[in-house]
Amino acid sequence: MKKISTLLVCAALFAAFPLSAQNEAEAAKTYPAPSEIVATAKAQEWVAIAPSDLLVMDLAPDAKGKPRRVVIQLMPEPFSQGWIGNIRKLAAAKFWDGTSVNRVQDNYVVQWGDATEKKALPDGLAKLGEADYVTPVHFFAGVDSSGKGFDRIEPPFQLPLNIFQFGDQLDPLVGDGNGVSRKPGGSGFSNGWPVAYLPSTTPASGKPQHVADTWPVHCYGMVGVGRNLSPDTGTGAELYTVIGHAPRHLDRNIALVGRVIEGIEHLSSLPRGTGALGFYESEAERTPILSVRIGADASDLPAFEYLSTESDSFAAYADARANRRDPFFIKPAGGADICNIPVPVRRRAN
Amino acid sequence: MKKISTLLVCAALFAAFPLSAQNEAEAAKTYPAPSEIVATAKAQEWVAIAPSDLLVMDLAPDAKGKPRRVVIQLMPEPFSQGWIGNIRKLAAAKFWDGTSVNRVQDNYVVQWGDATEKKALPDGLAKLGEADYVTPVHFFAGVDSSGKGFDRIEPPFQLPLNIFQFGDQLDPLVGDGNGVSRKPGGSGFSNGWPVAYLPSTTPASGKPQHVADTWPVHCYGMVGVGRNLSPDTGTGAELYTVIGHAPRHLDRNIALVGRVIEGIEHLSSLPRGTGALGFYESEAERTPILSVRIGADASDLPAFEYLSTESDSFAAYADARANRRDPFFIKPAGGADICNIPVPVRRRAN
Repeated sequence: MKKISTLLVCAALFAAFPLSAQNEAEAAKTYPAPSEIVATAKAQEWVAIAPSDLLVMDLAPDAKGKPRRVVIQLMPEPFSQGWIGNIRKLAAAKFWDGTSVNRVQDNYVVQWGDATEKKALPDGLAKLGEADYVTPVHFFAGVDSSGKGFDRIEPPFQLPLNIFQFGDQLDPLVGDGNGVSRKPGGSGFSNGWPVAYLPSTTPASGKPQHVADTWPVHCYGMVGVGRNLSPDTGTGAELYTVIGHAPRHLDRNIALVGRVIEGIEHLSSLPRGTGALGFYESEAERTPILSVRIGADASDLPAFEYLSTESDSFAAYADARANRRDPFFIKPAGGADICNIPVPVRRRAN
Repeated sequence: MKKISTLLVCAALFAAFPLSAQNEAEAAKTYPAPSEIVATAKAQEWVAIAPSDLLVMDLAPDAKGKPRRVVIQLMPEPFSQGWIGNIRKLAAAKFWDGTSVNRVQDNYVVQWGDATEKKALPDGLAKLGEADYVTPVHFFAGVDSSGKGFDRIEPPFQLPLNIFQFGDQLDPLVGDGNGVSRKPGGSGFSNGWPVAYLPSTTPASGKPQHVADTWPVHCYGMVGVGRNLSPDTGTGAELYTVIGHAPRHLDRNIALVGRVIEGIEHLSSLPRGTGALGFYESEAERTPILSVRIGADASDLPAFEYLSTESDSFAAYADARANRRDPFFIKPAGGADICNIPVPVRRRAN
C-alpha cells in the first residue's frame, strides 16, 4: 500500500473518469492499468536518485500555513551540464533565497528567479552557447529486414535509447530545424529521461557509426533555463517549469535541466499572472522563495527513485499507456506521444 | 490594441521566455509571431459564436471576493449532440446550481457536478451509446500524384476538414482501436474544432465516396462528460475539462462536448485534490457552483468569436505554430501536434 500511495509523479496521469473514486476500484480485471504495472515492478527495476542530483525549492507557506516544497531532479550527463553546473553554484551561493515566483502563464509555464534582475550572480558561472542545446552522440545505425532504422546509441556516451514510436511511426515532432525537409529523427527514453534525436549525417545501411544530435524534450513538469533573445542562452538563474500541454517548439531553443518530481502542484495551482506573458503585475502577487538547495544540503528530504526506462516493466507500462485495455477503456488509441508516457518517479520505500 | 488584449484563449500559448516582458517587445521583425498573425486577421475571417452555443458557469467568488466565471463553447453538429441536448436541459433545469467542483487532478482534469450523486436529474434526458462517441461522415478520398491521401469531407455533413500534418506525417495518435495495425487516419480542423478521423473502409484511389469516423480531440481546455464503467456513457450532468497535457487516450472513450473559451484559470489554478484521482476529501475543499446557464440566459455576457479554421490566416497561424521563425527561436520544429495549435477565440470587439 505504501508503494502505491507514493507514486507521485506518474499517478496523476493514470486515472479515468468515474463519477466517484470507488467505481474505479471495481475495475481492472484482465489487463493491468499502467499504474498497476508500475506498482508491481521489481525492486531492481527502480533506480535510486542521488540527493546530489536533486534541487529542493522551499516556497513560503501557503495561506493556511502549510509548507510548500518543490523537488526537482537534475538531468544526468551528457545533457545540459554547463547550465546544471551553474545551478549548483547558484544553489551553493544561496542565490535564490529571497527571490520569488514571478510568472504563471496558464497552459504554459511557471517561472521563478530574481524579479529585480539586479541581484549579483555568483562568480564563475559558465557561459554556454546555442550549440549546447543539443548533444552529439554516436549511434549504431542499422537497417533491419523490415526497413526500420537505427536502434542503439553507442560510445562515447553509452546512452541507452529505447526508441519510442507514435503508433507505428517515429516521433513526427522532430524536424530538421529548417521547417521544410525532414531526416529520420525520433524520440525515446534514455536513462530515465525523454529525449529526441536527429542524425547529423544521414545513416546508411551497414555503416555502424553515425553522429546524432540528442536533446531533452519539453514535457509537463520539465524544468528549463529562461533567457533573453538569442544568442543569449541564460545562466540558469532564471528557471521555469512546464504546466500545460508540451510546448515542443521550445525543444532545441532553450536548455532543459531537469524535471519536477514532487510538489509541482505548488506551482501549477498558483494564481495566473495578469500581465503580459503571465508575469505578475505587482510584487504582492509573487510567491516568495525561502530557499533553494541541492538535495544533499536540504533537510528532511526523502529518498527518490525512478523506474528504469530500460526495464521490462517500463516497456510494459509504455505499451499500456499507448494501448489502454483496462476496463474503463473501449478503444485503445494504438499510440501515445512521448509526453503522455511520464517516467514513473516515487519516494523510495524504507 | 483592444483586439490584442482580448485574445483570450490563444494568447496563453504564444510566448517565449524572456527574463522580462519588455524584451519580447524588442523582438518580432521579419517573421510575424503566431499571435501577430491572429491579431492582423481580417474581420471576415472571424466567426461569431451564438450565445445559445455557450454554457456559462459562475463559481463562488474567490477568497478576495472576485467573481469567477467560466465560459464554455458547446460543439456544433454533428458532434456529441445527444449529450449537448442533455446539457441544455440540465442548464434550463438549473441542475448545477448549488453543486460544486469536486475533483482537481494535476496535469489531467478538473471535474464538477453533484458530489452527492443523489440529486434528481431532470426528465427527458437522452440515453446515449458508445457508438455516439464517433460520427460517421462521407469523405472524398483521392490519392494525388505524390501518394497523399484524401483531403475533403463531403455530404451528408458538409464538414470542411483541413487535414493537419505532424511534420510531414498524418496524426500518428489515431490508431484503428485494436492497438496493433493501423489505417490511414489523421486529424485536422473543422468548423473551428480539432477533430480526428479514421476511414471505416479502406479508401481506394479514384473511389470518391467513403465513410470515415470522426471525433473531437482531447486538447487542453476541452470539456467532456464523466461516466462510470462502460457501457455507461454519462448523461452530461458530470463534466470535466482538461488542465494538462492532452490525454489523447481518452479520445473515442468519452464524449467531448465543448471547450473552455474564457476563465479556465479559475479551474486550472484550484488546489489539487488529495484523494484518489484528485477528488477532494472534504466538502470544505470543493468550490461551490452558483449557477450554470446557456449563454442566451446569462447576464453580462460579452460576445465571442473564433478564427475560422478554413481561413487563410488560420493556415498561416498553424504554419507559424509548427515553424516558429520569430526572433526568439533558433530552430523551427518543423511540426506541431494538433493540440499545440489552439484555435484562437476572443471577445468580439464592439
